Amino acid sequence: MTDSAKIVDDHLNAFANLEVSVEGRVGGPLSGLTFAAKDIFDVEGYVTGAGNPDWKRTHSAAARTAPAVQLLLDAGATLVGKTHTDELTRGILGQNPHYGTPTNPAAPGRVPGGSSSGSASAVAGGLVDFALGSDTGGSVRVPASFCGLYGLRPTHGRISLDGVLPQAPSFDTVGWFARDAETFGKVGEVLLQTAISPSRPASLLIAEDAFGLLDSDVRKALDPMVELIARSVGKHETERLSASGLDHWAEHQRLLQGREAWDGMKGWINEVNPRFAVDVSLRYFNGMSTSDEQVEQSRSVQAEAIERISGLLSEYDIICLPTATSAAPRLDRSLDDRQGVGYRLGHLLCIGGMTGCPQITLPLATIDGLPLGLSLMGARGSDEMLIGFAREIIDQL
Amino acid sequence: MTDSAKIVDDHLNAFANLEVSVEGRVGGPLSGLTFAAKDIFDVEGYVTGAGNPDWKRTHSAAARTAPAVQLLLDAGATLVGKTHTDELTRGILGQNPHYGTPTNPAAPGRVPGGSSSGSASAVAGGLVDFALGSDTGGSVRVPASFCGLYGLRPTHGRISLDGVLPQAPSFDTVGWFARDAETFGKVGEVLLQTAISPSRPASLLIAEDAFGLLDSDVRKALDPMVELIARSVGKHETERLSASGLDHWAEHQRLLQGREAWDGMKGWINEVNPRFAVDVSLRYFNGMSTSDEQVEQSRSVQAEAIERISGLLSEYDIICLPTATSAAPRLDRSLDDRQGVGYRLGHLLCIGGMTGCPQITLPLATIDGLPLGLSLMGARGSDEMLIGFAREIIDQL
Repeated sequence: MTDSAKIVDDHLNAFANLEVSVEGRVGGPLSGLTFAAKDIFDVEGYVTGAGNPDWKRTHSAAARTAPAVQLLLDAGATLVGKTHTDELTRGILGQNPHYGTPTNPAAPGRVPGGSSSGSASAVAGGLVDFALGSDTGGSVRVPASFCGLYGLRPTHGRISLDGVLPQAPSFDTVGWFARDAETFGKVGEVLLQTAISPSRPASLLIAEDAFGLLDSDVRKALDPMVELIARSVGKHETERLSASGLDHWAEHQRLLQGREAWDGMKGWINEVNPRFAVDVSLRYFNGMSTSDEQVEQSRSVQAEAIERISGLLSEYDIICLPTATSAAPRLDRSLDDRQGVGYRLGHLLCIGGMTGCPQITLPLATIDGLPLGLSLMGARGSDEMLIGFAREIIDQL
Repeated sequence: MTDSAKIVDDHLNAFANLEVSVEGRVGGPLSGLTFAAKDIFDVEGYVTGAGNPDWKRTHSAAARTAPAVQLLLDAGATLVGKTHTDELTRGILGQNPHYGTPTNPAAPGRVPGGSSSGSASAVAGGLVDFALGSDTGGSVRVPASFCGLYGLRPTHGRISLDGVLPQAPSFDTVGWFARDAETFGKVGEVLLQTAISPSRPASLLIAEDAFGLLDSDVRKALDPMVELIARSVGKHETERLSASGLDHWAEHQRLLQGREAWDGMKGWINEVNPRFAVDVSLRYFNGMSTSDEQVEQSRSVQAEAIERISGLLSEYDIICLPTATSAAPRLDRSLDDRQGVGYRLGHLLCIGGMTGCPQITLPLATIDGLPLGLSLMGARGSDEMLIGFAREIIDQL
């Protein structure tokens, strides 16, 4: 089953475990490709480490392989290892104090983004052809943007989460990264279990309030690509997404996500009293102090977001929005600074998070030589269309 | 300066650093005695570790030795190492997830108490003759009680805190442990820089509400010793200490202590985002969320406590109270359980904490074979009298 011939030189500190190695089935559509899985995906016979040494120490080897991983193995891809993640996926910048921060090969001295930090690092650095991550509050979209990769947060519920460490079930999704649109699409066909054809949506909405969050230089870096996409679609309009404000949606996703994460972990935390970086503990404490009444109120804000975005996506095939508010921040920032960055990112990330709509990020721009993603969002279930359109766009460039 | 002939076999996991070794001055009053210092006391040329690897990693070697340590060296005692502590002294049970829990030689399978855990363990296990600790909210009194040792929380401000990691300056004190009253007194003469004569107070108050916090078996274990002490004094009464409740005093010490600790550490925490056990982060977050208005209110509760206890100690020479609400708890308790134990202990510990009065704990009782301390408290500045009386009591046994 394991193949010691596949040796990865992990000069990026992307991998949590390189002993986990499973050869893909011979002759499948992904034959010849190698991949890595974020260390929250179970692989039979190995302990899932989840980015925290106390988690790893208090858990035993997985009894079976997560279906998402198994689909890829059955399709012929070879798993070469498991990658670093923020502690229990609770982070957006990819800085893990226990295991170190994976290198961002596209932005030296900068964070890779998280929590699927090692997966993005490994793909961006060419150590594997593609990698699995997860996205609850942005954990695929952000590292894809920061590392210059394709990444998808699929429709919520579209890809099985069995054998994947939960964070907040209402928001958790399985996603993946690749360097090129073709590989990205081939992997998508396997994970989504469908064929993906070239596609060209008939109408596009440019999210005015989402772009309005950007500093002018970031906006300027994305503008040419937004125009190119708009031209290729034909019918396009500019409109605000949220009447109450994207910050309002973000705040309520934070409350819901934090409370669900706390509910899921409180038993283990109480038993083990684990060691977390202070910011991770703070996330759990915020969840702990979120009341049932607050949850109810936040669910109604979520319903409002779903109604609004569904409405727009019945009018327009696609919404175009920035993936992140900036390029990857520097490594050496204080906790307050980093929390400020996380909050700002949340104002964009909540749109896909609150609504469960699929969002693909494309590595189409740079600012001062650093990657910057541009996102397309579609209605629930339109994952294939988004990937198909991404390939069309690339062909035009 | 260092003496490699003094080799300690640390089978108790009491020591954080055995490389720190400084020979005492020849011919002093403590010549021939060995001691250890909690790893929050600076010793020139060594990094003070403070029970947290991120603290140790981000600090450099101390430029000078803490005066409390220097006094002991000058008096002839030899320092053989620095001992484990709860992270940055934030704990009362002595369980440090980074470095492990020092063994309680007097109570197998039980915690040593903290935060001066390693100092108590080393003394109780006979690895040293005495050891320095610190007591902010009970960190000398509790491990002394749990490990069957003499321990003093001195008058607040009596012993220099220079070169000692602060926790909450309004409450921080330097204390020490010994197995016997004679050694305890000899060390006291050096640290208090005074002679200590046998003493016998003229009047004693038995703290009714403090004993009222105990389960009946704990009360029963202490009663014979309380009676013996009362008889030896002659005049004695039983009275409540707090009109508003010891739990009320404890709550306000918790608020004040937590806020001061946060104010002292927030800069470093923000810069480093250190790894703490969840319960340690929780203590800091409680401090972070304590408002200036709460502090003001708590200071007035503190003033009430000071007025009340000073009044009683102008009427009575000594107050007799239990040191802890139970013998040492088992090691394997959940976070919730341990927090409950800590809260209960706080109801006794706040009396000395809020008032700054000295409190000596004497290893005079056991319950089911486990040590249980009995405490004597005097007016501010009466440290010598307490130690002198402790020696008298022992002579009577």
